[in-house]
Amino acid sequence: MEEQVELVGRAFVEHYYHLFDTDRSSLASLYHQSSMLTFEGQKLQGGDNICSKINQLPFDKCHHLISTIDSQPSSFAGGIVVFVSGSLRLAEEDHPLRFSQMFHLIPTPQGSFYVQNDIFRLNYG
Amino acid sequence: MEEQVELVGRAFVEHYYHLFDTDRSSLASLYHQSSMLTFEGQKLQGGDNICSKINQLPFDKCHHLISTIDSQPSSFAGGIVVFVSGSLRLAEEDHPLRFSQMFHLIPTPQGSFYVQNDIFRLNYG
Repeated sequence: MEEQVELVGRAFVEHYYHLFDTDRSSLASLYHQSSMLTFEGQKLQGGDNICSKINQLPFDKCHHLISTIDSQPSSFAGGIVVFVSGSLRLAEEDHPLRFSQMFHLIPTPQGSFYVQNDIFRLNYG
Repeated sequence: MEEQVELVGRAFVEHYYHLFDTDRSSLASLYHQSSMLTFEGQKLQGGDNICSKINQLPFDKCHHLISTIDSQPSSFAGGIVVFVSGSLRLAEEDHPLRFSQMFHLIPTPQGSFYVQNDIFRLNYG
């Protein structure tokens, strides 16, 4: 069970940042109407608003490098909480930006997961 | 509702780190048998194991300085997810350590909250 949660968390994170780095608009499939994102303190609710925000971020190309992934069962309805640390390299910047992000994943009837909670923060040294 | 969640998240965070910095053993009251902590990748389950870990951390005095607190309703049973960034100053160290931490808070029948999920990571530059 523990191991399964780690595997799901890792697979989700790899999938999420792969989509983010290659085809940001396709992230829409991972959010629902009830989903929430807090991005550097800005709160957005609903898949449409969240995806607009992500698509309008002021950079074209980026690459996420993951440092750590920690996953735990959230004890409700088979949910999983995932905590990620890593760095974000932008095409136009020399220095990668360190970030931390958490996801609360909820299982769908189809056997996959959607993102209910998403909180992103850059780590300023 | 949104505002209430922010207030609860902030009050919890202030209470948690105040206890951590002044009387670490009293944190036991905030965890239950089902609680989980992942501390720098080490997984602990149950209030007793979590509090042993926290009490055995290799420093006596510390002070948490909070930079950001982001809270969202977790959509299940009145829970709240809280994401914190800040720095940890140890008495014997000159340089504070940057950290990020997330909590998943679950309401108790008594009207307070306990920590179901707790994930802590130091942020290495």
